Amino acid sequence: MDTDTTDVIRRVAVVGCGTVGASWAALFLAHGLDVAATDPAPDAQDRLRRFVDRALAQLAELGCRGGGRLTFHGALADALEGAGFVQENAPENEETKRRLLADIDGRAAPGVIVASSTSALLRSAIVAGCRSPARHVVAHPFNPPHLLPLVEIVGGDAGVIERAVRFYRSLGRHPVVLNREMPGHIANRLSSALYREAVHLVEQGVASVADIDAAISQGPGLRWALMGPHMTYHLGGGDGGIAHYLEHLGPSQVRRWASLGHPTLGPEVQARIVEGVAEEAGGRTVQDLEAERDRALLGLLRLLGRHPTGGEA
Amino acid sequence: MDTDTTDVIRRVAVVGCGTVGASWAALFLAHGLDVAATDPAPDAQDRLRRFVDRALAQLAELGCRGGGRLTFHGALADALEGAGFVQENAPENEETKRRLLADIDGRAAPGVIVASSTSALLRSAIVAGCRSPARHVVAHPFNPPHLLPLVEIVGGDAGVIERAVRFYRSLGRHPVVLNREMPGHIANRLSSALYREAVHLVEQGVASVADIDAAISQGPGLRWALMGPHMTYHLGGGDGGIAHYLEHLGPSQVRRWASLGHPTLGPEVQARIVEGVAEEAGGRTVQDLEAERDRALLGLLRLLGRHPTGGEA
Repeated sequence: MDTDTTDVIRRVAVVGCGTVGASWAALFLAHGLDVAATDPAPDAQDRLRRFVDRALAQLAELGCRGGGRLTFHGALADALEGAGFVQENAPENEETKRRLLADIDGRAAPGVIVASSTSALLRSAIVAGCRSPARHVVAHPFNPPHLLPLVEIVGGDAGVIERAVRFYRSLGRHPVVLNREMPGHIANRLSSALYREAVHLVEQGVASVADIDAAISQGPGLRWALMGPHMTYHLGGGDGGIAHYLEHLGPSQVRRWASLGHPTLGPEVQARIVEGVAEEAGGRTVQDLEAERDRALLGLLRLLGRHPTGGEA
Repeated sequence: MDTDTTDVIRRVAVVGCGTVGASWAALFLAHGLDVAATDPAPDAQDRLRRFVDRALAQLAELGCRGGGRLTFHGALADALEGAGFVQENAPENEETKRRLLADIDGRAAPGVIVASSTSALLRSAIVAGCRSPARHVVAHPFNPPHLLPLVEIVGGDAGVIERAVRFYRSLGRHPVVLNREMPGHIANRLSSALYREAVHLVEQGVASVADIDAAISQGPGLRWALMGPHMTYHLGGGDGGIAHYLEHLGPSQVRRWASLGHPTLGPEVQARIVEGVAEEAGGRTVQDLEAERDRALLGLLRLLGRHPTGGEA
């Protein structure tokens, strides 16, 4: 698309300012990038500014105090004017995204990357109306996006993917690249696989919701903050590592796979989950729990040296 | 079994001193309990003492410096003499465990709880040769057991389960109770479910092993150190919590479940995993990686206030 290998990005257009868009906005601002935001909802600007204020305070705790300038625009065209990168965060509706990306594609300056935050839609489906699909990538963050480093990238052009990876790395993110698109990308597929078995255990009455949750957060969850499943089994194989593990315990993995459940998510199991979560929350509201989570995440990111202060752009 | 609700346990018999047994021994010692260990392997005592020295130094960093006395015994009967609790950690072989537990059952003092660390065997199968099966529980820890709080309990008698839960809580553990036995208990089933999809993504060439691992450790893994999957989706539901999540996003979970893969663990995919892990490890040995993990886990446990300094006995 262009031969220049270094983008100089000073202004990012944030299209769609729900939780994900607002969180991206805060991250960009904290890295000194100007943000031109747009969202058709009547109270969008107020909600955005409230969210950004809170998120910027958290990012400042991580040493990230860039001080970019935030503007809000009623019209998409105004938000795109002069933007060197576009982050799209519209609702998860295929038709909405397809139209919006086509609209952005027709207005954004040539060569500017347009990144969609979609969690569940396929890139091929949502870029179908674009004249320049090659400059479009999926860049899916993880909630809360201004804190968690993961960004899942799906693209159609190696050079564009490389530029997107470099951009997100410059923001202290950890981009991972899919060689081909998959519904739910990587992390949500792995999360769903785990959750299916968690629902199966609830359905079968094996343990309480709180005990099933604790079986993650007091055990393997503590390791998964440090390393993924392959590396975990590498350490489970002793001196022989993953090769030894697969040779000796591979067959028992495969047997266990065959024993995993296929639950439904019917009204009865839903009711048991809702009741179990209420017990586990013990009177704490979602806001209380979010504040607890963010506080702990800030500590975790500092401890593990995963500050969002960024690397080389 | 007995009507006394408070066990006064001063000495624990540790039967089988591989990594799991040695780790339990260190935890008991660090809580001031005497440990009488036994293991038929010729170098067992040396390996045990080396492991315990290292683990005690880690536990001391967490403020846990009980100073129990460690003795090693060639004969099972000597290790069981005067023990107020038995932790069995023999190799994962059903016949071995069944014989050993029957032997322990015939020698341990009446009413003393016998806990098996089995990760993969069913309680019903391994207690089949015991005269007093009610006093036997599964108490499965997570590697490394002296650091990770999780203990999965499967029992046959409510009073015994309650006493076992109280004992492990007194060691700063987080016991969870299964209402009925399942192969792999809870945490290993959830881990296997996640790993099946990870292997599927390797098999399908969707991303590198390192990127699949990072999709956990840079994203949902950081949250799973703080809370389990149900609570995570509770926070994903906004103000409406898990009820809102299940109502609105339940159908997309169920659709994603249907799209999850059923990989085999054949030679080709094994080779790709082994190669991918080697790349990810980048020259670090299993020992290097274990030391890194333990260092980070110690920080994590301190940060999250999950010290093993114990609660009320």
